[in-house]
Amino acid sequence: MPATAENRARIPVQALLDFTVRAFLRVGLTQGDAETMADVLIGADIRGIDSHGAPRMRMYVERLRDGLTNPEPHIATVSETPGTLALDGNNGSGPVIGSYAMRRCIEKARENGVATVTVRNSNHYGSLSYYPLMAVAERFAGMTMTTTGPFIVPTFGAAGILGTNPICIAFPGGERERPFMIDMSTSVVAGGKLEIARRENHDIPSGWALDEQLQPTTDPFKAKFLNPLGGDREHGSQKGYGLNVAVDLFAGLLSGGKVSAENTQIERTAKATHTAHMFSAWRIDAFVPWEQYAARFDAYMQMLKSCPPASGHDRVLTPGEPEWLAEDDRRANGIPLHPAVLEDLGKLAEELDIPFV
Amino acid sequence: MPATAENRARIPVQALLDFTVRAFLRVGLTQGDAETMADVLIGADIRGIDSHGAPRMRMYVERLRDGLTNPEPHIATVSETPGTLALDGNNGSGPVIGSYAMRRCIEKARENGVATVTVRNSNHYGSLSYYPLMAVAERFAGMTMTTTGPFIVPTFGAAGILGTNPICIAFPGGERERPFMIDMSTSVVAGGKLEIARRENHDIPSGWALDEQLQPTTDPFKAKFLNPLGGDREHGSQKGYGLNVAVDLFAGLLSGGKVSAENTQIERTAKATHTAHMFSAWRIDAFVPWEQYAARFDAYMQMLKSCPPASGHDRVLTPGEPEWLAEDDRRANGIPLHPAVLEDLGKLAEELDIPFV
Repeated sequence: MPATAENRARIPVQALLDFTVRAFLRVGLTQGDAETMADVLIGADIRGIDSHGAPRMRMYVERLRDGLTNPEPHIATVSETPGTLALDGNNGSGPVIGSYAMRRCIEKARENGVATVTVRNSNHYGSLSYYPLMAVAERFAGMTMTTTGPFIVPTFGAAGILGTNPICIAFPGGERERPFMIDMSTSVVAGGKLEIARRENHDIPSGWALDEQLQPTTDPFKAKFLNPLGGDREHGSQKGYGLNVAVDLFAGLLSGGKVSAENTQIERTAKATHTAHMFSAWRIDAFVPWEQYAARFDAYMQMLKSCPPASGHDRVLTPGEPEWLAEDDRRANGIPLHPAVLEDLGKLAEELDIPFV
Repeated sequence: MPATAENRARIPVQALLDFTVRAFLRVGLTQGDAETMADVLIGADIRGIDSHGAPRMRMYVERLRDGLTNPEPHIATVSETPGTLALDGNNGSGPVIGSYAMRRCIEKARENGVATVTVRNSNHYGSLSYYPLMAVAERFAGMTMTTTGPFIVPTFGAAGILGTNPICIAFPGGERERPFMIDMSTSVVAGGKLEIARRENHDIPSGWALDEQLQPTTDPFKAKFLNPLGGDREHGSQKGYGLNVAVDLFAGLLSGGKVSAENTQIERTAKATHTAHMFSAWRIDAFVPWEQYAARFDAYMQMLKSCPPASGHDRVLTPGEPEWLAEDDRRANGIPLHPAVLEDLGKLAEELDIPFV
């Protein structure tokens, strides 16, 4: 019987968080940094972003254990103005650097109404959603972007020189409606979707991927490159391509760091990845009174939810709603883990000589 | 013989600019505001964005003539912090309000490193590209977004409750390479592309549009609704949908104004459109020294240009490059106008009792 979401083991959220903290303490992080790693990684599982949570824990742990990621980074200020900050992450753990950068960004936006922080010399920082949601918790809108390793083909091009270069934007919820969130690669799909297809051994839709010879493929094991969002020129792939390049410019160039083409996929390198990020925050009540915003936000989301559905669909979902529905389910019932992931985490616990969940 | 780009009349840029200034002086704008209208509208023609330039001049002129747009708006400050400004456009001409707002945004970003300005109660502000390019001219990165009239269908939905909600981002060029620019609707294509297909009487690709009954159509005259960027869910339409909603939130909600669903297509209304905009600017040298940025920018664009091309294509274009190639051609050889547009502008000159080009 194949492992479907229905028959997977469910691990309670707190047990998985505690295990994650133990694992990162074991490879040299402080208690605070280990808790941040757990919040970011397991936060992805909680919100149903299965490609970015527990299945990636081994990668972060091994890189720290092997000395590829700096467990005690000194995060340095490169330049600063009232509304901006450029940081150097000193090759620390991405989630540790990312949450520090977003915290600084929120502080600056509290004073200035808006702020932007760039970061160079970081590493894979997990699911992007974590950082804009830090802003949302304080009634700010938030945005983040990051470089990644290259494997996206530009429009009219025949080489994977761009990253998936994702963007995440979130706005706080109102009195009744939960936050808006969009967490998207600027490729037609995120690389994590390929990993899921490989793990679950099913084909991928046409239009997503190219093989080694840059020919279209629906085999996730042959898929080597992805198209930009839009898929082809006729359906706007030049927009996905343009957004993708914008991420390289905002994160890679405004940080004084590297762009995706200069990185290596973190899974495939034994060197620092030089990942670069960008964070922005907007204080809602710098623009409009909070109560006015909250009422308008609720009305807007209600409008989306009451849109007549297309045939074959129950209703229109608001952006972010799938994540909140997953969160409700997983906080109540635990996080479903694929047997292969569960087994691997068990092995990781043995290797680290710590109790598993 | 059909009117192709090759056999169209070419009007010198300066002649078209002068005519446009005359037209707007005639309907009550000041010399400065009439020149702004000309810069914004004909700037679109210069950069090859044929859907947003001269063909739309009549709409702006008639709305001013008929008292639907305020020729002497008092642009009011609603709220202000060091890095932010919320403005009320007092139902003035969109390009006049938009260029004022972007100027203020650049001033604030000069002090703060970054700034964001929102605007409510504006009108259609022409091609978005104009505003980020104002920032680029001062060595800032720039961004703008705007609400529009609604005719985009949300993912899983069956009603055109979203606007095309476009976004434009630009980064300054380096020593050798010209600016980066992406000017994109968050729909699969912009509404202007339907207008061009109608004017030129050719079919549109499948996946773009839905007819009155929300059935797919390739007939531009039957096309009534558009899909979000991505086209369908399998190819990421939830990303286009999410970006689209983000534009409503940044422009419509952060301005305290209206969202696209509350607007009417400007071509179809005899009332104020309540269009809302958002502008952001980032001072490059708040983050990194200008010379470092410029060298990195040039190297990055060279990397894109030297990407091996896919079969059937000469080379990869950088985002913005088609616009700069059009600008070179049109400044040298004049702006090609479709015979129907040329005839209509001639009639407009007669109606206003001013010399045509």
